[in-house]
Amino acid sequence: MSNSNNIKNQPIGIFDSGIGGLTVLAEIERLMPGENVVYFGDTARVPYGNKTSATVRKFSVENVLFLLEERVKMVVVACNTSSALALDYLNNIFRIPIIGVIESGVDKALAVTSGKIGIIGTKATIESRAYQRNIVKKNKKIEIFSRSCPLFVPLVEEGLTSGEITKKIIQMYLENFKKKKIDTIILGCTHYPLLKKEIAKYLPKVNIIDSAQEVASHAKGVLEHFRLANDKKAKGNKKFCISDEPKNFTNFAKSFLKRTISKPRVINV
Amino acid sequence: MSNSNNIKNQPIGIFDSGIGGLTVLAEIERLMPGENVVYFGDTARVPYGNKTSATVRKFSVENVLFLLEERVKMVVVACNTSSALALDYLNNIFRIPIIGVIESGVDKALAVTSGKIGIIGTKATIESRAYQRNIVKKNKKIEIFSRSCPLFVPLVEEGLTSGEITKKIIQMYLENFKKKKIDTIILGCTHYPLLKKEIAKYLPKVNIIDSAQEVASHAKGVLEHFRLANDKKAKGNKKFCISDEPKNFTNFAKSFLKRTISKPRVINV
Repeated sequence: MSNSNNIKNQPIGIFDSGIGGLTVLAEIERLMPGENVVYFGDTARVPYGNKTSATVRKFSVENVLFLLEERVKMVVVACNTSSALALDYLNNIFRIPIIGVIESGVDKALAVTSGKIGIIGTKATIESRAYQRNIVKKNKKIEIFSRSCPLFVPLVEEGLTSGEITKKIIQMYLENFKKKKIDTIILGCTHYPLLKKEIAKYLPKVNIIDSAQEVASHAKGVLEHFRLANDKKAKGNKKFCISDEPKNFTNFAKSFLKRTISKPRVINV
Repeated sequence: MSNSNNIKNQPIGIFDSGIGGLTVLAEIERLMPGENVVYFGDTARVPYGNKTSATVRKFSVENVLFLLEERVKMVVVACNTSSALALDYLNNIFRIPIIGVIESGVDKALAVTSGKIGIIGTKATIESRAYQRNIVKKNKKIEIFSRSCPLFVPLVEEGLTSGEITKKIIQMYLENFKKKKIDTIILGCTHYPLLKKEIAKYLPKVNIIDSAQEVASHAKGVLEHFRLANDKKAKGNKKFCISDEPKNFTNFAKSFLKRTISKPRVINV
């Protein structure tokens, strides 16, 4: 009994290639305030989105191993690229539950779509066809369109979330979605929600799915299913670890998390 | 005697955070066709330009250690960020000659400028002030302007080396240089030469310095000074190593090198 209590007190682990996954942390914090969380952002090797499956898999395994040292009870893969390229592999080799953002995003999209879904993400995510496969598995009748948008992450990191350049780049990437009259778009990368306003302007009346947001309720379900949820009333402890500390980390964290955070620990990778 | 001959036959090592440094290889090949060369591109951890000095230093040391295993006689740091943040450190700890792109670019710029130099590069390069310090050391009267251009690398990697979006981004970054009437601009990143045409259109009559190009003649001088130059008539052997093999590696290599290359070896980092 005391043992199972101990497990419940163990933290949820979240990892991302960088800091975009803080949006997942924010949702988990909102939905399950009592949970302790360890966040790891692999800022020394970011981005993952233009790297091969072998490399993303290797980095992902290392990230889980690090979180296991922190005694996490489950892992949430906040990174879309890792979820697309490494999730099955991670679940094959590790014993604790590990969930990714793709299934959650797809489930939400299928719940609201009237038949035409557009998916955007990094090169690696789109080329992996992980979103596409997951949709087809659940509903063969959906028309699926996809586009990798490699300029969106650097755009967000430059702080260009609106303005003429941003509008032009959104148009360049999403022109075909508009032509095809998609009704739902999945934002398959943790940075993209920061472009949500401009995307909504360019694609009015289209449902915009933020996978990162959806994964938090999936995580809650999994914890409850395995009776691992922490039901303490007190606010859970949050720990931040990164592999490289960029100068502007605190500012980025603020824009993603909408609050200031404690100084992160820097881990050697 | 035969021993010194052996040293001459040893390869030149070149490393870069990615594949942009192939422009340096191309110049070395042109200038010193007899030299054997080992190129290492750290494609698994690219880019370096938005990471901290401690991380860039660590990666740079690892890259030199790898090249030493390949028995190189000298190292050319093709990456501007590594040159800016790690070159002095590398020269303090390793015995073989190690040269970077900054000094070569500065020398060329000082030879042609009439007094106003603009420097562009990654965040890390510009914030390090390595170019600025090197210029001031040699000529205190130069007016120096600098600007980090984080969108240029992803733009080039998207193949957007011309067109409206590219023109707008160039204008955003270089507007102040135009206003200040700089006469010389240093392209402080190996990717930027691919934007040279558009930069020249926006800044007509401005001298454009490609540091990567200049470093090859610097390397030649150093090898001759230390009597390490390979004077064989036969064409030298070129070996390519990378830490992650992106799908489009061969295409990129072609656009940088203007010829096809042998299949690269993938190194675990």
